Amino acid sequence: MDRDASRVETFSDGVFAVVLTVMAVELLQNGPARDPGRELPEALVHAWPTYLAYVITFGIAGQIWLGHHNMWRYVVRVDQVLLMFNLLVLLFVAAIPFTADLLSDNLRGSATEQRLTAALYLGTVLGESLFFNLSWWWARRHRLLHPDLDPQLARAVSRRLVVRPLLYTIAFAFVFVDPIFSLLLYLLLLVGLSLVRRPGDLPRFPAEAGGEVSDRGR
Amino acid sequence: MDRDASRVETFSDGVFAVVLTVMAVELLQNGPARDPGRELPEALVHAWPTYLAYVITFGIAGQIWLGHHNMWRYVVRVDQVLLMFNLLVLLFVAAIPFTADLLSDNLRGSATEQRLTAALYLGTVLGESLFFNLSWWWARRHRLLHPDLDPQLARAVSRRLVVRPLLYTIAFAFVFVDPIFSLLLYLLLLVGLSLVRRPGDLPRFPAEAGGEVSDRGR
Amino acid sequence: MDRDASRVETFSDGVFAVVLTVMAVELLQNGPARDPGRELPEALVHAWPTYLAYVITFGIAGQIWLGHHNMWRYVVRVDQVLLMFNLLVLLFVAAIPFTADLLSDNLRGSATEQRLTAALYLGTVLGESLFFNLSWWWARRHRLLHPDLDPQLARAVSRRLVVRPLLYTIAFAFVFVDPIFSLLLYLLLLVGLSLVRRPGDLPRFPAEAGGEVSDRGR
Amino acid sequence: MDRDASRVETFSDGVFAVVLTVMAVELLQNGPARDPGRELPEALVHAWPTYLAYVITFGIAGQIWLGHHNMWRYVVRVDQVLLMFNLLVLLFVAAIPFTADLLSDNLRGSATEQRLTAALYLGTVLGESLFFNLSWWWARRHRLLHPDLDPQLARAVSRRLVVRPLLYTIAFAFVFVDPIFSLLLYLLLLVGLSLVRRPGDLPRFPAEAGGEVSDRGR
Repeated sequence: MDRDASRVETFSDGVFAVVLTVMAVELLQNGPARDPGRELPEALVHAWPTYLAYVITFGIAGQIWLGHHNMWRYVVRVDQVLLMFNLLVLLFVAAIPFTADLLSDNLRGSATEQRLTAALYLGTVLGESLFFNLSWWWARRHRLLHPDLDPQLARAVSRRLVVRPLLYTIAFAFVFVDPIFSLLLYLLLLVGLSLVRRPGDLPRFPAEAGGEVSDRGR
Repeated sequence: MDRDASRVETFSDGVFAVVLTVMAVELLQNGPARDPGRELPEALVHAWPTYLAYVITFGIAGQIWLGHHNMWRYVVRVDQVLLMFNLLVLLFVAAIPFTADLLSDNLRGSATEQRLTAALYLGTVLGESLFFNLSWWWARRHRLLHPDLDPQLARAVSRRLVVRPLLYTIAFAFVFVDPIFSLLLYLLLLVGLSLVRRPGDLPRFPAEAGGEVSDRGR
Repeated sequence: MDRDASRVETFSDGVFAVVLTVMAVELLQNGPARDPGRELPEALVHAWPTYLAYVITFGIAGQIWLGHHNMWRYVVRVDQVLLMFNLLVLLFVAAIPFTADLLSDNLRGSATEQRLTAALYLGTVLGESLFFNLSWWWARRHRLLHPDLDPQLARAVSRRLVVRPLLYTIAFAFVFVDPIFSLLLYLLLLVGLSLVRRPGDLPRFPAEAGGEVSDRGR
Repeated sequence: MDRDASRVETFSDGVFAVVLTVMAVELLQNGPARDPGRELPEALVHAWPTYLAYVITFGIAGQIWLGHHNMWRYVVRVDQVLLMFNLLVLLFVAAIPFTADLLSDNLRGSATEQRLTAALYLGTVLGESLFFNLSWWWARRHRLLHPDLDPQLARAVSRRLVVRPLLYTIAFAFVFVDPIFSLLLYLLLLVGLSLVRRPGDLPRFPAEAGGEVSDRGR
């Protein structure tokens, strides 16, 4: 039943592709070229929050796509609940450009504006990571994964995935103390998560697993 | 001839992906960050109809995608008429963000505005469900489905599919009595439709059928 | 080498999906809900050219997608020139929403406006059909089609495809006589082209051909 | 593990499809039909920079898609780093409509505006070509390519790919001398690169390689 999981990937990829390009469309349609009261060099500099939102969106949505790619390659069957969880992941992913843009626009705003937009942004990535964990948990519990997948590897993936919403919750809690500190914490955690993966361990994740389940029949 | 049906899925998924992300783009481009006369907290609250339209669109278009996914996995051949019906389904699906946005914008408007936008919205989902039924009916009649598909299951799907346009028509009729009541009826029917599917029966629909036609050759 | 042709289809489907949904996005972003000086019922009526452009775009782009689907299912290999021709087809397809919108906006304009927008619209579909013919001709000449494809069928497809640019040229020439007559002629030709396909002959095109090349290995 | 590479293609194709159609959307939403102070014929002529940006975007992004298609057909496995490089290629590809639009808008501007926008545009294509080379280099080094791929062909592709960023750097350097000359140089180099491919050599690249690795198992 490979075709089922394959269609979910095609569909999700469509959503990811639009999310990644949305900020570039925004730059085109409401960017420096459409800035009425400014000279071009100044308008280009003035648009820096939009560039920032573009790079944040690409970084985060790209990272989520990598995770989605890693997870779904083990899924060989789907059911309604898994599809529903996947839709909810996409609901939050599609909101990332909006909240990233709000956040970058208000980084130098008042404390209230910073708090509000940081909370919205962190809430979006938190919601995405929660439903991402739910899909993996559901797929494991209902035997929707490849039968030859090493149970130890499956558990390792579960442990790795659960770290993200935990750290996001901590960063989220600090928004009410200091929004800028909370964002720095979030960035630090992101970088930390990447460094923790030792060479030969998780960075080579797909390649290794590929060897294990290479007889997948497709 | 699996590749034919597969390409129809890719193409439809592209349309679904754009439809799901359109409201997020709208939030970005004309949302609270672009609201000139308001402070941010107030602008964020004031944009609630757009959030509502976003969630409605995601809910409805996601549900239609699930149905589309369930149906097309049984289709192994296509002909011109089936492709035409599928295009007409997509024509109505692509109009959902527009009508959902109109509806949520006018939920607190005058009675005429409520009636007009509720009628437009329900007309869109009604049109979609009619052509969806037509595609399934055509595919069954012209033997475009998988030959091993249990005829009893095919009939059960037909019965299940025909319920949606019937209920939508009832909800549509009540628009002329009371638009808000009509929408509540519509929501009630949607939730009802989901509850009716007993566990082990339709929710596990793909997984079960997967077992039946697992020798599909792909 | 099925994967090559398959990727061209995925890529083209992405472009078609965006083209089909673009007018719905336009309705959402600049449609009746954003019409400042008008009451809702009046604004909804006043937006009729956009609805017309939506339906025209869906009709034409959907028909081109059907033709693209029919053609590419015979293609088993690709080369640079075929990919280039396909890109040029997509260049014109992507311009259809723009020219259809211009046309529907100016249907009741001055004679110059009618002539100009009708010429632009017909020029776009003419350009598309020319490069479409070139791709089929190139694929036939360089043996990129399925080897088991009946040469007689291939010739029949060639003859059928060449009719479209010819008729479009005639309709295009009449723009300089009377733009509205030219558009009516174009619509008449479109409907005529559909009627000419006798049942059991071309409408069942994919299904029949499917039987002939059903041993394609995928 | 063909499915991995296949999903990367689907995802990248989604981004390419949006990039190719973005300028057409821009023409529709902010194009001549929305030009308030001008008659239609004048407005149509006045929008020439947008048409130019449309054709540039289609030309460049289409060419990059061809290259992406050529490269990825040899990739049979992926790892995290290759996916990261591919995301960075897409980050620059998605920025092309924005920079091409800025460039075409300022072709007749002051020397500063020309220099700034030419530098931005060339910087974007330079960034894309750098990460494109990095992905090919990484895929070769870590044995992610098809094992039957002729090493001599792989080296030839490497040599051919490395030419692009080199020439772009030269064109980029000349921006600080004369921006218009730099762009002409860039166009000349692009045309030159196409002519250099002798018939029977690189233009038939996919077809030939297809013969070599035709036993790929899909």
